[in-house]
Amino acid sequence: MIEKGLLIVLSGPSGVGKGTVRKGIFSQKDTAFEYSVSATTRKPREGEVHGVDYFFKSREEFEDMIANDQLLEYAEYVGNYYGTPVEYVRETIDAGKDVFLEIEVQGAGQVRRKFPEGLFIFLAPPSLSELENRIVTRGTESEDLIRSRMKAAREELEMMELYDYVVENDEVELACERIKAIVVAEHCRRERVQYRYKKMLEVD
Amino acid sequence: MIEKGLLIVLSGPSGVGKGTVRKGIFSQKDTAFEYSVSATTRKPREGEVHGVDYFFKSREEFEDMIANDQLLEYAEYVGNYYGTPVEYVRETIDAGKDVFLEIEVQGAGQVRRKFPEGLFIFLAPPSLSELENRIVTRGTESEDLIRSRMKAAREELEMMELYDYVVENDEVELACERIKAIVVAEHCRRERVQYRYKKMLEVD
Repeated sequence: MIEKGLLIVLSGPSGVGKGTVRKGIFSQKDTAFEYSVSATTRKPREGEVHGVDYFFKSREEFEDMIANDQLLEYAEYVGNYYGTPVEYVRETIDAGKDVFLEIEVQGAGQVRRKFPEGLFIFLAPPSLSELENRIVTRGTESEDLIRSRMKAAREELEMMELYDYVVENDEVELACERIKAIVVAEHCRRERVQYRYKKMLEVD
Repeated sequence: MIEKGLLIVLSGPSGVGKGTVRKGIFSQKDTAFEYSVSATTRKPREGEVHGVDYFFKSREEFEDMIANDQLLEYAEYVGNYYGTPVEYVRETIDAGKDVFLEIEVQGAGQVRRKFPEGLFIFLAPPSLSELENRIVTRGTESEDLIRSRMKAAREELEMMELYDYVVENDEVELACERIKAIVVAEHCRRERVQYRYKKMLEVD
């Protein structure tokens, strides 16, 4: 009777620092979840290791994976495919371990449809809180600048809609701590714990 | 535009170690929430300080507080009243700080009705997981013992129903860490964060 692991999805606007935060989390020794390695058709950069940084695939291999529904999500950027092999994710979760994905917002939408029970974390730029300060202490910025910032903030807010949690990336270390706290908390949610005990008591 | 603080309610079966866990949390320097001091008609014990351990009240004063709806919850144990003055809780939350209550399960039910948006944490005895092990590795315990443990576990499960989170008190330090993680996570919940930004963008 193994309790399933959590699927943790970290995403957010491009340039927000998802990769840095992910590396921060996995550089810590007490991190108890598994990183899901992506597949890509992009060529390895110096120092990148197959199976560690990415699974490097030919275009043909990648398109076979798409055709055979072997990807939890995928997208094409600048002529290269990037995607999450579903097999590793399912196997890890079924073995009772938490899996961590760091993906683009488009991919997060695909994962939400396939794994609605996943834990979706939106990494937000500190600009959102900075904006708050700017609006509160008005008059020091040009109207154009404020307007364009408001527009960007509105777009980020709309993207958030899909997520369970929002973590501000004001400092990488703080963002990592918050993400780890969210995972700890989710494991304590009553629905999750109670279900486990209920099942156990039914056994008898 | 101050965001309201959270009301954190720690409760659980009597004897589970609520007081020890609460002291553990408040002995840590990085604890960022305020402890709500209870009112009681019980006489101070040696070393107990009015306003720190309890607000010590006469029976008449306490009954006035009940009559004037100045208590978030109260109960009578062994001839003495114990209760949570509502004023301090409201003032602290309105000032944007989190308030922490450690109360009996009966009181937690009263608070849930008055503050449904509170964060309710059930401290569970490790006996629940021990029970799991016992059931899995059967045959080493008498049937009577297993039956009485199952009964106790069922009662504890029923009490959990009201709560948002269940924290097992297997080790005090771990229980404290989990509770603090839950509070961090709750502050990152999308509904909470998004609402704040939405309000801010409406301002303009």
